[in-house]
Amino acid sequence: MDCLFCGVAAGEVPATVVHETDRTLAFRDIAPKAPTHVLVIPRDHHRDIGTLMADDPALAEDLFAAATAVAAQEGVVEAGYRLVVNTGPDGGQTVDHVHVHVLGGRPFTWPPG
Amino acid sequence: MDCLFCGVAAGEVPATVVHETDRTLAFRDIAPKAPTHVLVIPRDHHRDIGTLMADDPALAEDLFAAATAVAAQEGVVEAGYRLVVNTGPDGGQTVDHVHVHVLGGRPFTWPPG
Repeated sequence: MDCLFCGVAAGEVPATVVHETDRTLAFRDIAPKAPTHVLVIPRDHHRDIGTLMADDPALAEDLFAAATAVAAQEGVVEAGYRLVVNTGPDGGQTVDHVHVHVLGGRPFTWPPG
Repeated sequence: MDCLFCGVAAGEVPATVVHETDRTLAFRDIAPKAPTHVLVIPRDHHRDIGTLMADDPALAEDLFAAATAVAAQEGVVEAGYRLVVNTGPDGGQTVDHVHVHVLGGRPFTWPPG
């Protein structure tokens, strides 16, 4: 198993799953940076948001629908939240399986890193 | 004209447009936080990513395809970049017309605000 998040999707790597659909999975970040910090991934492996949009753009709809569903489920919609997608070294991407960070439960400053 | 970004989409508010499709428009942030700092919006008005996913989820595909096209056009794909979508007060959303920040050209720190 080369990809950590493929391992999570396969149920072979433990994770605190909070939301799932047939094409996506959402689980808590193991190093949370806010009271709500959930990662949303597609079950299929795509390296980053650029390759996802090139190879299976319709899956982006599932991914962001799941992200906003997680925000609702976590009760952060009214107060607000931030979605972040990191790509490559400058972006700070640490796992090469595209994931959307859903961050809420506190105010977020600007710039975003 | 109540919505600033509807004004940009209508060509009534000046902006430095860098990319456009039939459903999206991308222009430079007037207060850039990185060498590349572009905002991608749908031409249609949607308050935030939550209402967009509820009302016209397929448009998310256009929006993120445009965001990754902007990253490619700006030459930041190899070095990396960060996409950010702010929603509501905690998220730091300052214009109530959903927009994706495309940030590149420098390393981004963690947490993202």
